[in-house]
Amino acid sequence: MIVVMQRGAASREVQQVEERLRELGFATHPIVGVERTVIGAIGDRRDDLLELVANLPGVERVVPVLRPYKLVAREVKEETTAIKVGKALIGGSEVVVIAGPCAVESEMQLLTTAKAVKEAGAHLLRGGAFKPRTSPYSFQGLGEEGLKLLAQAREATGLPVVTEVVDTRDVELVARYADVLQVGARNMQNFRLLQEVGQAGKPVLLKRGLAATVEEWLMAAEYIAAAGNQQIILCERGIRTYETSLRNTLDLSAVPLLKELSHLPIIVDPSHATGNQRMVLPLARASIAAGADGLMIEVHSDPARALSDGPQSLTPPQFAQLMEEVRQVALVVRKPIRAQAATSCQAR
Amino acid sequence: MIVVMQRGAASREVQQVEERLRELGFATHPIVGVERTVIGAIGDRRDDLLELVANLPGVERVVPVLRPYKLVAREVKEETTAIKVGKALIGGSEVVVIAGPCAVESEMQLLTTAKAVKEAGAHLLRGGAFKPRTSPYSFQGLGEEGLKLLAQAREATGLPVVTEVVDTRDVELVARYADVLQVGARNMQNFRLLQEVGQAGKPVLLKRGLAATVEEWLMAAEYIAAAGNQQIILCERGIRTYETSLRNTLDLSAVPLLKELSHLPIIVDPSHATGNQRMVLPLARASIAAGADGLMIEVHSDPARALSDGPQSLTPPQFAQLMEEVRQVALVVRKPIRAQAATSCQAR
Amino acid sequence: MIVVMQRGAASREVQQVEERLRELGFATHPIVGVERTVIGAIGDRRDDLLELVANLPGVERVVPVLRPYKLVAREVKEETTAIKVGKALIGGSEVVVIAGPCAVESEMQLLTTAKAVKEAGAHLLRGGAFKPRTSPYSFQGLGEEGLKLLAQAREATGLPVVTEVVDTRDVELVARYADVLQVGARNMQNFRLLQEVGQAGKPVLLKRGLAATVEEWLMAAEYIAAAGNQQIILCERGIRTYETSLRNTLDLSAVPLLKELSHLPIIVDPSHATGNQRMVLPLARASIAAGADGLMIEVHSDPARALSDGPQSLTPPQFAQLMEEVRQVALVVRKPIRAQAATSCQAR
Amino acid sequence: MIVVMQRGAASREVQQVEERLRELGFATHPIVGVERTVIGAIGDRRDDLLELVANLPGVERVVPVLRPYKLVAREVKEETTAIKVGKALIGGSEVVVIAGPCAVESEMQLLTTAKAVKEAGAHLLRGGAFKPRTSPYSFQGLGEEGLKLLAQAREATGLPVVTEVVDTRDVELVARYADVLQVGARNMQNFRLLQEVGQAGKPVLLKRGLAATVEEWLMAAEYIAAAGNQQIILCERGIRTYETSLRNTLDLSAVPLLKELSHLPIIVDPSHATGNQRMVLPLARASIAAGADGLMIEVHSDPARALSDGPQSLTPPQFAQLMEEVRQVALVVRKPIRAQAATSCQAR
Repeated sequence: MIVVMQRGAASREVQQVEERLRELGFATHPIVGVERTVIGAIGDRRDDLLELVANLPGVERVVPVLRPYKLVAREVKEETTAIKVGKALIGGSEVVVIAGPCAVESEMQLLTTAKAVKEAGAHLLRGGAFKPRTSPYSFQGLGEEGLKLLAQAREATGLPVVTEVVDTRDVELVARYADVLQVGARNMQNFRLLQEVGQAGKPVLLKRGLAATVEEWLMAAEYIAAAGNQQIILCERGIRTYETSLRNTLDLSAVPLLKELSHLPIIVDPSHATGNQRMVLPLARASIAAGADGLMIEVHSDPARALSDGPQSLTPPQFAQLMEEVRQVALVVRKPIRAQAATSCQAR
Repeated sequence: MIVVMQRGAASREVQQVEERLRELGFATHPIVGVERTVIGAIGDRRDDLLELVANLPGVERVVPVLRPYKLVAREVKEETTAIKVGKALIGGSEVVVIAGPCAVESEMQLLTTAKAVKEAGAHLLRGGAFKPRTSPYSFQGLGEEGLKLLAQAREATGLPVVTEVVDTRDVELVARYADVLQVGARNMQNFRLLQEVGQAGKPVLLKRGLAATVEEWLMAAEYIAAAGNQQIILCERGIRTYETSLRNTLDLSAVPLLKELSHLPIIVDPSHATGNQRMVLPLARASIAAGADGLMIEVHSDPARALSDGPQSLTPPQFAQLMEEVRQVALVVRKPIRAQAATSCQAR
Repeated sequence: MIVVMQRGAASREVQQVEERLRELGFATHPIVGVERTVIGAIGDRRDDLLELVANLPGVERVVPVLRPYKLVAREVKEETTAIKVGKALIGGSEVVVIAGPCAVESEMQLLTTAKAVKEAGAHLLRGGAFKPRTSPYSFQGLGEEGLKLLAQAREATGLPVVTEVVDTRDVELVARYADVLQVGARNMQNFRLLQEVGQAGKPVLLKRGLAATVEEWLMAAEYIAAAGNQQIILCERGIRTYETSLRNTLDLSAVPLLKELSHLPIIVDPSHATGNQRMVLPLARASIAAGADGLMIEVHSDPARALSDGPQSLTPPQFAQLMEEVRQVALVVRKPIRAQAATSCQAR
Repeated sequence: MIVVMQRGAASREVQQVEERLRELGFATHPIVGVERTVIGAIGDRRDDLLELVANLPGVERVVPVLRPYKLVAREVKEETTAIKVGKALIGGSEVVVIAGPCAVESEMQLLTTAKAVKEAGAHLLRGGAFKPRTSPYSFQGLGEEGLKLLAQAREATGLPVVTEVVDTRDVELVARYADVLQVGARNMQNFRLLQEVGQAGKPVLLKRGLAATVEEWLMAAEYIAAAGNQQIILCERGIRTYETSLRNTLDLSAVPLLKELSHLPIIVDPSHATGNQRMVLPLARASIAAGADGLMIEVHSDPARALSDGPQSLTPPQFAQLMEEVRQVALVVRKPIRAQAATSCQAR
């Protein structure tokens, strides 16, 4: 770390900071400038220590040099982590598409939608059984009943299932039914939940928090990794900004940035990012063009009757159109989309 | 709600929207303008229904007229809710001050600090036993051991105890030791946790989420209230903005705004808001001048050795100075600070 | 507009609002709900009137129904405005690329760069002669000398020139040299400058303000249009958010959104948006995939010696690579890039 | 500055960076860590040079150590700059209040309001003759006619006049009539305007930009100071955040922060910050409690007929109430408000 001393800090203060740094295990290198002294401190980064030092008399601020995350950093593992889910390989050489309704509402709704997205070429099925809703008076999901319907839809289509878990007490239950455990935006810094899903033995899809920095997001992934699970899929889903013409602001810069910072695969959810189905198709194309490993798309067999997030859901024909256009963009960036649907349909 | 139809929506579309609204139990009043038709729909607000309608063909957008929260709204209860904790009355005619260390670190640290804040006139003691930390490698708190030390400090000083709960599985445990359960900023939309603390039979201190709107914050309070508990203290602690010269941006406008929108008491935490102890005193004065019912202030007997958030902690003498200055501002806004410390010390 | 009355507004207050609305030329339609009365007011939108009404006794808020912009709205002109600059048609059926250095520094630098971008297929040359810099101690541009060099580079390459104007007093001067007048992000709400460039008889490239909403941006365009000039190119260049890992947050959702709201062409500047040349290529691909009409890219013959914004500048070979990849994405969205460079080189 | 090299940067790259730094006049101090090398570079801060260095091969990032502003920094001038305007001393030992209508609308409106604010104890009169409005169809101000009315109001009340200038071409004209030149939020980075007002020989009131950081704001002040004028009053007026329940988010933390960073006086405008007159009184009290040197308050003799910003304007009796309450808070922070009104009324 670099410790910047206040202008006019006493040389006694500089000495005290150096002593404290050495006590904490750092080698110190003071540099005396005209206006300020800075101290270079060589040693492991621990955020606790940054804070301790920042509070010593005469210190203006502490600038960390090393990154706070270790296990998920590209620096420690050059090749992208590829995660096998069913026949799909997320983070591999092909674009993977997860699709399905926001919430599981009924057997009919789920099965119809699941078959339609499978038909159009989706690789995984999404659907919420436990829904975190802003209002206590909104539909909260079907709970375990919803999980059973998801398992049934997997049976019927062969598509592995992604579903959200919102409570540490439910992790075991959800892991019994799901192929991938989703941690939603509102729980990105629910650290206990991160630790639990890190021990559940299933891949985790980690959505970016509503107003999380890329660094905080990677630190959340680090919690999961530190609990023993590196099968983590990052999912950009829009951030909160002053702009309110769409629900959130999709941060596509995060895609190439994360490719540089981390070895984890990154997918994009343009449906939640915009809350507007007319924006989903162009932003799905853009996500793949930016280098994303996959997409997460909301599809509903009858959006006008959806109990949750209808306005952002595509109809099955709109989704088929999206798959077609995304397929072409994927070819340009040399991450083709495998025609898994057709093949596995023959197999059934 | 008001349904704004798209420019050029077909009259058949207008009719269909009206029919659907009536199906959903609304009385409808179409208003045909030159460019657009809008439909006034009279009935109860349910956010699910807003979404359903927003997705009908020809609809441009839906504008809710009623507020989404009911139990916590000033509209339904004119007088401010006053919450009795020990001898303090939060939301009553006096300013209440909660003080103590960010994290409980040791018996010595906690007791020394607790006695000091009591001496200076604080009414409640704060201290974290379960700490939500951005990094998995930072100090995570002493857990139940910390709760026991808090109970011990209450014994020694007579100050009721506020402490955070971060996991639904810990609510019962924390409620056994604490006088007020704190829900932290990162858990403001951990809806399961809100439901659990709503049933724990203790007052709840609900911090504003990092990037929560005032409306979302009140909806989080509504979750607690809907679970049966209206003993909720709102705590403004800074929001995330583009400005990075301090940790967060303290939103003091939220104080008079919440006084208008809700009957719940509102306190301010300038320590977490700024992360800089030099800003705490002026913003504490400002909070009370803005009309807040109280303050939450970090105090540490030895900030330079604090394991968490040292840079924002006041020393005991700094805190005594703060109490003195805040007391004078409180008089101006006619919410005096009771000299509880002295009285109850005599009583012991 | 819709006027929402306060809960419990007196019927006399409702009447007064209705009277005032009729005075102002609106037809009124009151709708009496259980909790609140709302008044639909039919008439032209004028933001002054919204404010007047919002301040009447008993009014809670006013919700506009119509959009505040008129001339630049897609609603009033269905086909996209295509702007002819030299041989390029911005907003037409092909993607147009503007490239060049951030600032004009010297004849050598400009000519070398101009020839290189022409060679790689760029359609217009960019370069700043008047630079708005955060610090008064930074390089402020060469002024008229820079404009002359731009004219010289146009002579040498045949590329039309885009350059920024920062002062109402310079509009005439800059318009003498430039083919397109650029209004920068910091001047997006310099309304006098907007009016001046609206009368200068040249197309205007209007960058989005640092923290401008899409609506404010269109209102800035409306100023130019109201001054008599509809030859306006919108340029998304990133917005200010809490995320600081890159310079700004590129808002690609704005591309399909603007396509819906306005008939003006929209291009994207990923160089300023990110401030990091490694992000420029993937985001350039993404911009075109999202439906943008063109790109604005910083290229410098020797970025390591650039006097301004070196870290985000591409070298000529990097730019050639970008053109190649963008060309393929452009084919997918059926907006090919014309090989203008080659053709016109032959012509010379 | 501190130059952080990339992990694994070649030692040749480190050498090249050192050489380049020395060429640019810096003394260099490399510190070789386990993962990364950092280079301390001692010399003057120039933002151009930071950029140049940031772009060298092998460099990850550059961390400035010194602040970018010099003339306006507290570091170079310990005592607060006090600015004499009429009988008021802004930045002195007393709180100063500027009040008046948003826009000058008519002789009657201005004189009535001016007399009322004088009566209640205001020290300066505000009023806009040139109004920067988001919509080209809104009232744009009376122009020079408005300036004349302001001069007339000064005659009638003895209050010095603050008014906005929005165009470099108008600076001379406005300076003929005004006692203080206001640069509005939308022009905070209109650098040419800053330079012009810096040469106009009148104190400048510099509003914070809509989304300006504290550092950018001080850099804008630095432009004025570098043009030869240090009579600068900073005015906090709310910043743009994701929170939309009020117009902007008033950043009161900026007050104590600026007191630390700069010697310039700082006042607060709660009227524009909130856009809601019910919030103005509590936030005016809070501003003074936070340590502000003064206030800027919108008052209108008949807010319901105001042509601009009516909803945020106080009536004269509301303003008198505000003065009374602010006076008491000012006493607590030992910055009394002088009863200038009464005295000078007697004198007339």
